[in-house]
This record gives sequence, structure tokens and C-alpha cells, in this order.
Amino acid sequence: MNKLDTSKTFLIVGLGLLGGCYAMALKRQGYTVYAVTKEQADIDYALEAGLIDGGSTAVEQELLDKADILVFALYPHTFVEWIRQYGDRIKDGSLLTDVTGVKGCLVYEIQAMLKPGVEFIAAHPMAGREVSGVRNSDDAIFRDANYIVVPTENNTFGAIELCKELGKVLGFARVSVLNPEKHDEMIAFLSQLTHCIAVSLMCANDNPGLVFYTGDSFRDLTRIANINDEMWSELFLSNREALLREMEKYRNTFDHLVQCVKNNDREEMRSMMRISTERRAAFNRKYND
Amino acid sequence: MNKLDTSKTFLIVGLGLLGGCYAMALKRQGYTVYAVTKEQADIDYALEAGLIDGGSTAVEQELLDKADILVFALYPHTFVEWIRQYGDRIKDGSLLTDVTGVKGCLVYEIQAMLKPGVEFIAAHPMAGREVSGVRNSDDAIFRDANYIVVPTENNTFGAIELCKELGKVLGFARVSVLNPEKHDEMIAFLSQLTHCIAVSLMCANDNPGLVFYTGDSFRDLTRIANINDEMWSELFLSNREALLREMEKYRNTFDHLVQCVKNNDREEMRSMMRISTERRAAFNRKYND
Repeated sequence: MNKLDTSKTFLIVGLGLLGGCYAMALKRQGYTVYAVTKEQADIDYALEAGLIDGGSTAVEQELLDKADILVFALYPHTFVEWIRQYGDRIKDGSLLTDVTGVKGCLVYEIQAMLKPGVEFIAAHPMAGREVSGVRNSDDAIFRDANYIVVPTENNTFGAIELCKELGKVLGFARVSVLNPEKHDEMIAFLSQLTHCIAVSLMCANDNPGLVFYTGDSFRDLTRIANINDEMWSELFLSNREALLREMEKYRNTFDHLVQCVKNNDREEMRSMMRISTERRAAFNRKYND
Repeated sequence: MNKLDTSKTFLIVGLGLLGGCYAMALKRQGYTVYAVTKEQADIDYALEAGLIDGGSTAVEQELLDKADILVFALYPHTFVEWIRQYGDRIKDGSLLTDVTGVKGCLVYEIQAMLKPGVEFIAAHPMAGREVSGVRNSDDAIFRDANYIVVPTENNTFGAIELCKELGKVLGFARVSVLNPEKHDEMIAFLSQLTHCIAVSLMCANDNPGLVFYTGDSFRDLTRIANINDEMWSELFLSNREALLREMEKYRNTFDHLVQCVKNNDREEMRSMMRISTERRAAFNRKYND
């Protein structure tokens, strides 16, 4: 497979929020898109909304034979289970990719399970919403967002290039490449640690009156405190070592700030605030937020 | 003074972002508004933009004689210094209020310094932006926001009611009343701790590549990491005891989550996430965010 021309047919496996966003973006670009998912109601909705050309709650051989590119939008353990069960039925020459939030624990295992002639190139679209389900899909979340291609040494150059092209076709603002270990380290800090912080903050205070006194800073910081416990506990434990390292680094920095307040060390406190402001500015310039 | 009818004249002391927002909202409602501030350029801008009817960089007696209500939008120590220097020249019967982010360290001291016939009723508008200066003023930030009136036992019923009315006139969605100690405890958690967290997170990782991989959760959580170090270090140290208590509570909760990850305790982790989601929902329902 050389190029992502619109003769290609996609099969989305798992039609939740992200699967739906992929379908929406791909249909918009003129591709043929099918879906396999658990609930018939989600297939019905996606057909009616024009997100897919067809779909099924069963893994039909006909769909697997049509698909050139399969996009897996499943929980990590469900993804592995799916490949174990249906991997041998995937058409020769197909390319597999995914949206999973952890990589090291998953990518090598999946690649080892696949038959020759079928390649898995991992990817992580850094976009989401605080609501779930295909009914909340909106590919506008890809605009201004980052897309990370996560190859291993087993991946072919062609698959890596095609996956980068997919990120652009989907409408992402920037496409990057990281190996699984670097990806997991980055994600432990940028995504998992931030969710740990938001959850801890909400659990640290049970005063029901807070809502009458809050400002925007608290609302922004805790937006992600509305969290899918099934998915995120799996993501945390799938990336346990890297997450623990980032939690430790952050906690040491927070402790340093506690000491500054304890010691009335205004100069050191201001120095931390200046570092913080300067580093945050890089995020502003590129993304206008 | 009984009612906030539009015959009342306001004097804004300190024409920064919040002072400018007050001026904008008050002019919109038909009040006469003057300002005293350090920079002539800010007076010129505010006059041109129609935010004020007049102003000066000097504390002119004529302005003090015109003012029925004085709004102080200064740093805590500057506010105290201003009252020490000019307090005796304030017109009899005037009402003073403020926008300061800490109260206990300030309110009793200011009230004790004022001559009889001049009353200070503290207030805290829970609104702000990540940019400063009167040029960035926009009273739209008061919409959907909370306004807290912070009386002491020395305040009159009339002043408390008038200050509550002011919150509504300014366009705040909800006006509440808290004593200075409760206010400072609440603010330590809702506002100061959140800024401590954002600053610590930015300081914990010096990887300049983060911006290529980040998602919205990190951007939201660190929006307030862009922080005015002069103001916030003063606010932190002015509310040191309460802030240290909230930092300690939060750190214990975060440590508990670290232990869950270390021990692979998925059930306890999920329980924290469910508490977090449930508590955060209260913030959603009332404010549509």
C-alpha cells in the first residue's frame, strides 16, 4: 500500500467517541468506512448520521475482506483479545492502526501475534472529550490537536509514512513520531499525571458548598476530573512504571513549593512561577489558547 | 446609603484588569465612574474607551469628594499603604469595597484604620483572565462567575446588602456571603492550591518537546501556570496557614493515589475516580461547562 487515495476502505473496530470521529473525518474526505461494534444502536446511529457505509455487531468475514485499513478503538485488553480471536481472518496486505493511550504494553504483543503480510502501526490521537459514545463524535476535536505515530523497529517505512499521512487526512494540526517507550513516558506526564492530579484534587475536599465560590481556575483544572474509571484505571496500570516515575517527580516539585511557603521564601517561589510562566508560553504561541 | 441607584459615583483605585472590568460594567449600568491609578496612559485609554468619566494619577481631593463608593483593586500591601496615607481624606458616608484575593490578613486591619463614618465591606469577585492591564478588561468575565461578600462583625447590615447588590449590578451569576476566615480557607483550596499545582506541574518537567505531543487536558490544567509572580507570591504568603493546610490535605490524597498505583489496587483507584466524577458533576450542572 503506497498512498492513502480514496479507493481505500476503512474498518473501524469499536465505534465509541474516537471511532466515530475517525469515521466522520474519513467519510468527509471521501473514503469508504465500515464499522464493527458491540451495540446495534450505535451502528444504526452511525448509518443514519452518515458516518459509515455499513457495519455489524458481528465480525463478518465480508467486512474483513473489504477492509484495507483497520482502526482499533478499543480498551487495551479488548484489543489484544480481539486480535487473538480474529487476527488470522484479516485480509493479507491489510494495515492495522489504533487509538490506544498506552503503547509499550501492547504494541510488541500485537505485532508478534499477527500473521506475515499484516502490519500493525500504532498511533495515538491526542484528542478527546469529557463525554463518550459515538453520538458525541465530532472530528473538530482533531483540529489544533497532536497526532503521534508510534512505530517499533519491526515496522516498515511505508507503513510509518502511511500512518503519518492518515494523521493529516484526519485533520490533525501536527503529526509526530515517537517510539513506544518515549511515548509512554510522555503520556505518563502529559495525560495520566494530569488526570491523577484532577482526581486527587476533587477527592481532597468534600465541601459541597465549593460550587458557590469557585472561579475558572478550579473549573479548568478539574474538567478532566469527570473520568471514565474503567478505562483510566486500565490505562494507569498498563503504564504503571512510567506513571509512578512522573508522579514522583511532580510530587517532589510540589513538596519544594510547600517548603517555600513554609519558609516564607518568596524569592524561590517567584523563581518557580517565572519558570512556569515561561514554559507555559510555548504552549500558547503555537496553539492560540 | 440605601440603594445603588445610578446617582451614585464610583471611584476605582487601581485601574488594572479587574478595575477596568468594574468600570466597564458600572458605566454600562449608567453610573458615574472615576479612577485613580499609577499610569497616565491607563487613564487616557480608559477615557477614550468610555470606561470612566475622568481620572488622575494623583489622589485628588476633588475625586475623593465626588466618590460615594470606592473600589480598591490593588495588591494587598499597597491597599493597606493607600489607606494609611489617604484614609483620612475620604468623604464622610463613603463606602469602601475591594477585589483582593485574601481577606483575613487585611480586612480587620483596614477597618481599624478608617475614621468613623467611613465603612469598608470586603468582596472577592471570582473572575480573572491570564492577561493583565486595563486594555484587556472585559466585563463578560463576570457572567457565570461567583461574587463573594466578606463581612466582619463590624460591618453594618446596610453595607452588606449594598455590596450584595453591587455584585448583581456588576453582572455576577451568583452572590454569596462568607466571613474572612471561611473565605480564606475556601480560596486556599479553590484558587491558591490550583495555582500551586499548575506551577509545580510546569516546573516538574523541562522537556521542550512536550508541546508537540500534548493534549487538551494538559493545556487546561496549566492555563493558570501563566502566573503573575509578584501578585501570587504575595497572595500565597498572606494566606500562608490556610494554604499550607490545603496543600497538605491534597498531598495526602495524591499520595494515596500513588499507593494505589504502586499496589495495583484497581478497585480503590476506581473508587477515587467515581468520587471525583460525582463531585465534578455538581460544577457542570450549574454552569454548563
